[in-house]
Amino acid sequence: MKGLWLENKQLRFRTDLPRPTPPEDEALVKVVRAGICNTDLELLRGYYPYAGVLGHEFVGVVEQGPDRLQGQRVVGEINATCGQCRFCRSGQPTHCENRTVLGIVNRNGAFADYLTLPVKNLHPVPENVPTDAATFTEPLAAALEIQEQVAVNETQRVLVVGDGKLGQLVAQTLALTGCNLLAVGRHDEKLANLAARGIATGREDTIRDRSFDIAVECTGNPDGFETARRALRPRGTLVLKSTYAGKLSLDASTLVVDEITLIGSRCGPFPKALELLAQGKVDVQPLIQARYPLEQGLDAFARAQQRGVMKVLLAME
Amino acid sequence: MKGLWLENKQLRFRTDLPRPTPPEDEALVKVVRAGICNTDLELLRGYYPYAGVLGHEFVGVVEQGPDRLQGQRVVGEINATCGQCRFCRSGQPTHCENRTVLGIVNRNGAFADYLTLPVKNLHPVPENVPTDAATFTEPLAAALEIQEQVAVNETQRVLVVGDGKLGQLVAQTLALTGCNLLAVGRHDEKLANLAARGIATGREDTIRDRSFDIAVECTGNPDGFETARRALRPRGTLVLKSTYAGKLSLDASTLVVDEITLIGSRCGPFPKALELLAQGKVDVQPLIQARYPLEQGLDAFARAQQRGVMKVLLAME
Repeated sequence: MKGLWLENKQLRFRTDLPRPTPPEDEALVKVVRAGICNTDLELLRGYYPYAGVLGHEFVGVVEQGPDRLQGQRVVGEINATCGQCRFCRSGQPTHCENRTVLGIVNRNGAFADYLTLPVKNLHPVPENVPTDAATFTEPLAAALEIQEQVAVNETQRVLVVGDGKLGQLVAQTLALTGCNLLAVGRHDEKLANLAARGIATGREDTIRDRSFDIAVECTGNPDGFETARRALRPRGTLVLKSTYAGKLSLDASTLVVDEITLIGSRCGPFPKALELLAQGKVDVQPLIQARYPLEQGLDAFARAQQRGVMKVLLAME
Repeated sequence: MKGLWLENKQLRFRTDLPRPTPPEDEALVKVVRAGICNTDLELLRGYYPYAGVLGHEFVGVVEQGPDRLQGQRVVGEINATCGQCRFCRSGQPTHCENRTVLGIVNRNGAFADYLTLPVKNLHPVPENVPTDAATFTEPLAAALEIQEQVAVNETQRVLVVGDGKLGQLVAQTLALTGCNLLAVGRHDEKLANLAARGIATGREDTIRDRSFDIAVECTGNPDGFETARRALRPRGTLVLKSTYAGKLSLDASTLVVDEITLIGSRCGPFPKALELLAQGKVDVQPLIQARYPLEQGLDAFARAQQRGVMKVLLAME
């Protein structure tokens, strides 16, 4: 089968990959659509030493699996877990000690004709959700993870730093809580997407220092962290939503003096993400920048790596 | 009056300081005993541009104040607050936007014959608490702040990194929760203090990675941070108790992947600290390294700056 193979920071389009055979408890999924995420770009830069098929945001159709899923359009949670370790047993499967992660850790990913995942990871896509939109289930779930970790309510002033792919989803999901929200970024047209949904937007330099209860860093660069940090009131909460290539240098003393809480945030609840998509409460259409066939996957990556580009999709058929 | 005056990273013993006149709502306190804290040493190194009398850990006797405090031995909370700002009004006076801080921010401190503080900041010292012990009220309250911020219970594995002055108080207060506690450090004799109180102790290199629910960093150096970080399980909590001179460099991606919570922790509840001292539940006696008269304050600082030295006290009479 065809696929995009990462090895030694080199991405290659290959046509010689064997079609995977699903182990027991796993399903064979024919990939229909996949999205390129910043994590893919960072893997390419060597953020984590992964070798294999890249890709973890996808929609597919089950070709081999249990009857109830056969022929179904599905999305899939990316952490394949052991079910036995202390984290699995304590209801925290995304932190399974023995996990493989689709296209990230020891498990071939979604930028290929086929993938396999444990049956328990798969979620049928509601009929009224278009395939393009469903491709955003994974990052949308990640955005919703914030609300699993931090209580967000109408009394709170919340700042989202970054108007890119992740920032857009984070801002849209936080807006649904009714909190007092401001999204800041550097791209007028991206901020306009959010403004069109009734979200207050602005430039980073317009923020009043020490005035927000919660700030969510979605840029993945130290400037964004600094913006989020200075916006927070004492005892405020800074949510780190992006992975960073390299180290982050911070003034730990001000975290202590202001008693700031800094919280890392990763994978989130798929069912809630699918529900929001089915209800039309989140609009991902304006986030799609381009669509490429898998065969032009290297071009798709070149495009995705350009500054300011939003979601680039790969279409397998 | 006499006092230790900091200016431009220079500490001087002065005899020409005017005895302060308490403003309305403040009391005049004759200082009896004071303790040198790491924050004092960092102020001396220029961590914050303070000029004035140093010192914020003290026991004194009220010379001018309300009748109920007249002649009383007292300790004092170090943040003098406005009572008007949003933090004061929301019950978070230690984060008052207009605060002065004894011996730290715009308010002459305790390494002098006299100081003034708002009457509301003063707490009588219970009769059975020796003056030396009461000098630890402020750092003991700071240690107790951890339990104001993080729920600590018997089911949790908690690590304290650092066996110095702060680590000793943090470990002793956490031990009272009944949590599964380990204190690590680099000084056998200091660890022995804790072991004598029934606290499990060890060297930093004996910690099993990813096995603690909570880790408290009490060393103020990047190695200690790294030790605390690697000891934490996914979704664990790292409490930053020390201020750091300079920046801290950290791998933000692992905070995100492991969804770590990092929380800065500063001043805490004086009444609880005094209660523990009165009940004899915390033993500060072994933490006292030396006692100097105020006139030998510069020698006292030289001693306090030596590696591995515990609490150095100044005795004013």
